[in-house]
Amino acid sequence: MDKTAKSLTKGSPMTRRRFLHLTGAALGSAGVLNVLNAWGQNAMDGLTEPPKWDGNGNGTKVIVIGTGAGGCPAAYELINLGYDVTIIEARDRVGGHVWTIRGGSSGEEYGKGVQTCDWPEGFWWDAGPSRVPFYHNGFFHYCRELNVPLIDHKNLNLNGWVYAENVDGELNATKIRLHEMQADMGGYTSQYLAQALDQNALDEPLSEEDLEHWKSYLINWGILNANDLTYRKSDHRGFAVLPDVHSPGTINDPYPLRDLLPFADSIMQAAGGYLAATATFDWQTTMVKPKGGMDALYDVAFREFFGDRLHLNSPVTKINQTPDDVTVTYTDSETSEPVEITGDYVMCNIPLSALLKVSVNFDEPMKTAIRSVPYAMALRMGIGFKRRFWEEDDWIYGGQSFTNISQLGILGYPDDNYLSEGGVMLGMYNFGTNAAYVSSMPYDARAQLALSLGSKVHPQMKDEFISAFSVAWHLEPYSLGAWPSFTAESREQVMPILQEPDGRIYLVGEHLSNVNAWMEGAVQAAWMQVDKLHTRVMQS
Amino acid sequence: MDKTAKSLTKGSPMTRRRFLHLTGAALGSAGVLNVLNAWGQNAMDGLTEPPKWDGNGNGTKVIVIGTGAGGCPAAYELINLGYDVTIIEARDRVGGHVWTIRGGSSGEEYGKGVQTCDWPEGFWWDAGPSRVPFYHNGFFHYCRELNVPLIDHKNLNLNGWVYAENVDGELNATKIRLHEMQADMGGYTSQYLAQALDQNALDEPLSEEDLEHWKSYLINWGILNANDLTYRKSDHRGFAVLPDVHSPGTINDPYPLRDLLPFADSIMQAAGGYLAATATFDWQTTMVKPKGGMDALYDVAFREFFGDRLHLNSPVTKINQTPDDVTVTYTDSETSEPVEITGDYVMCNIPLSALLKVSVNFDEPMKTAIRSVPYAMALRMGIGFKRRFWEEDDWIYGGQSFTNISQLGILGYPDDNYLSEGGVMLGMYNFGTNAAYVSSMPYDARAQLALSLGSKVHPQMKDEFISAFSVAWHLEPYSLGAWPSFTAESREQVMPILQEPDGRIYLVGEHLSNVNAWMEGAVQAAWMQVDKLHTRVMQS
Repeated sequence: MDKTAKSLTKGSPMTRRRFLHLTGAALGSAGVLNVLNAWGQNAMDGLTEPPKWDGNGNGTKVIVIGTGAGGCPAAYELINLGYDVTIIEARDRVGGHVWTIRGGSSGEEYGKGVQTCDWPEGFWWDAGPSRVPFYHNGFFHYCRELNVPLIDHKNLNLNGWVYAENVDGELNATKIRLHEMQADMGGYTSQYLAQALDQNALDEPLSEEDLEHWKSYLINWGILNANDLTYRKSDHRGFAVLPDVHSPGTINDPYPLRDLLPFADSIMQAAGGYLAATATFDWQTTMVKPKGGMDALYDVAFREFFGDRLHLNSPVTKINQTPDDVTVTYTDSETSEPVEITGDYVMCNIPLSALLKVSVNFDEPMKTAIRSVPYAMALRMGIGFKRRFWEEDDWIYGGQSFTNISQLGILGYPDDNYLSEGGVMLGMYNFGTNAAYVSSMPYDARAQLALSLGSKVHPQMKDEFISAFSVAWHLEPYSLGAWPSFTAESREQVMPILQEPDGRIYLVGEHLSNVNAWMEGAVQAAWMQVDKLHTRVMQS
Repeated sequence: MDKTAKSLTKGSPMTRRRFLHLTGAALGSAGVLNVLNAWGQNAMDGLTEPPKWDGNGNGTKVIVIGTGAGGCPAAYELINLGYDVTIIEARDRVGGHVWTIRGGSSGEEYGKGVQTCDWPEGFWWDAGPSRVPFYHNGFFHYCRELNVPLIDHKNLNLNGWVYAENVDGELNATKIRLHEMQADMGGYTSQYLAQALDQNALDEPLSEEDLEHWKSYLINWGILNANDLTYRKSDHRGFAVLPDVHSPGTINDPYPLRDLLPFADSIMQAAGGYLAATATFDWQTTMVKPKGGMDALYDVAFREFFGDRLHLNSPVTKINQTPDDVTVTYTDSETSEPVEITGDYVMCNIPLSALLKVSVNFDEPMKTAIRSVPYAMALRMGIGFKRRFWEEDDWIYGGQSFTNISQLGILGYPDDNYLSEGGVMLGMYNFGTNAAYVSSMPYDARAQLALSLGSKVHPQMKDEFISAFSVAWHLEPYSLGAWPSFTAESREQVMPILQEPDGRIYLVGEHLSNVNAWMEGAVQAAWMQVDKLHTRVMQS
């Protein structure tokens, strides 16, 4: 029996997918929707494809504003359903928060002037979303539809470094390998628990069999000496001298528990628990991403599909709806003059933070809802290096290193093109007040800070530096934030309002979903909003 | 300070590499070798490139027998050093134990008849080595030299299944996700230890600070309730209902400790501790492999480099050396007639197990040494499926599932071409007596057994089955074993004899290295033997 499969029956993708196709074929217009609604609150979970809609939009005019992770699938589905779709995008590219930086990429944060990337051919780095959890089937659906190949993304590389400073003990301000910390902490934890079990020192009553199973498990998992249940050094933690043609090598000694405890405790708390979070469902292996950059799906595949329906460099300033239609005003990229276009409906993928800057005649409840969602601050920096010293010198192939330097956060390594000449590291990733502080600096000063702090882990940084490109998402004019920071309470109060159309205007984006700060949330929101709009049109 | 770097100073790759180049340039013929020898037993460790040899072989004739992971780099280096190299290979391909199976691949095990693979275009699977640890720099050197691109190989995918039968408790004969087992066992372990620490129930005296650090670490690592130090359910273990547009989802309940203990204990011991071993230095993330199959380096890149120096389908039957030369007799592939060729030296990459079948006038100590190394039995099976049900239904992108079914062992999933149509799973991997038993069956019966056992984890197997290809390495005529099974004692006694030339014959292969059962051991052995041969030629 498959216990997980059982508990996930309602969301089992193949079952649901097949069932939806079946009912979609058998029922009339918008038939699937009714089935979904009848299933209640969890209707959308586990969907791996958009609902199979019936009926045709027959040229009903929809203006899609914004080509982020929500706008793109919404426009794609509406086009396929026969709507007359016009797509308006403020930036010079498709993707919104999805932004792959390459040589030639440029941007201008509020008050910071223009920043242009000068990395060599073949370098790329995702300033926004950079990884996809294994269960984000809506994202995968479009990769399949549009032939976007995927590669692995690694959050966890046990050969990455962990570095902690301002901690007690001998490991202060040192870097050790993550596999050393993991092996030693797992070993000591196993030893102390196994010895306590052995002495029946615990309150909890366990049967003889339970005790034996647990001790046996800890011996194998923590690598304990089976006789006295002490942690022994093993090839889990690595070698002082590697095995070779002459000798079987010398295994490293464990770090003393007292030196390791303050170090490991600090690392586990650092950067909002970033290391501990690599074990969460969302961040577990396997994560994937499009080969060559996240924009392969957006600025390449969706962009090609949209063709001349798409208007780039066209920031929207006003949305005005009447009972009969809705008019969108944007600034024309060539003339700098305002342009008005009128349609039947608007699908609006502007983040709530930036939507506040647009004049829209929403009802009061919607205005209040939009105002009530604060957005997070986050700064990410890609640093181009002449040489892959992390591979050549440190034998780190992808993944991350973790520090307790709050302005630096984590370091990330490219997960492809191993052994090639040079590449881009995620050289800084910080949040909240640290992001506020660092983002206040000019681009160059941010880079110097990243090099100075990062050199504590990789002293080669300064010698191999080409240039950096940093993105403070809260200072990006059309983002004004990294992601919406809902509380459980605000989520409950605000999200139902955001999810319903305000007259002829439908919002779309991950801010309409509980899969927050993920592209998948935006895909699910797109399917939900297209479903609502299409049902309305079919019934009118 | 970098403690690991410090302890590995002698092996630090860049330092060593640069030093070797430096001394190689400054010293005369075979100068580097003397430096290496002066460094003693650990001379080769951490080498990321072959030593920079001086001097030229000037057409000295070397016959390389066997194109395994040792023969290929040996031949490559000798050719580059100006030797007149002839390469004799028994099989119809380059690679030896490195064998990538595709549609059209065929083989004949002892007494089993011919087996031919009929998988569709684009399917591939490595019957032999399938993964490379991050520190195998010799292997990487040739990938760099010959432009072989690498992708990730995953031993550990937390969304893989674990399945155990014949265990006590409610989880008997069920499959659960590895992340569920990991989260729950880590949680309970943390809870029991944290509570014991809290009550000062341990013998060992720990300071207040130590106790607080450890409890804090366990709270974050095991996801404990900070108030009462009990394990609480979290998104580390997964969802019963996934988060979606309507709800934040429902987190699964932990399995009861008493049901989990016998299950987890059994899984940790299964298949020789295969799951526990994913934490060893050799098997940790990141592992890599050539894109499209291991033969990209051997049967493609090395083969092209060797050109017409290479004679395939030419099994060697006899090696006869005199004080002046050495004559190799092989069977010509077209005429089936014996052919003799004579050279100055032989570099022999035949596994010891198969070398016993060749008539060679070795000295007695070498004969005894060769006879004294038993080889392991192992059987691996690739199964081609019409549909990637492990991705579509189970959301498993690469990695492995672990079972305690000893005839089945582990299951492995392709680490690339995600979302494509169909692919090849590692459908069976067993060792020792299990390999002996299963390998005694005809090819078809092995496949039926694998489907029958594997269906306990993947019931879709039988519906999606195309065909299987199994390789019992101990029954492969030119391998006769999976890898040499040294003991620490036999390693000490036998390896020094194997490493020295017997007259004009030099052995090469991973059986000359402590990096056993890895291609890297064969590369290091090749560099050592080329070094010895070249020094001899330069001094003569």
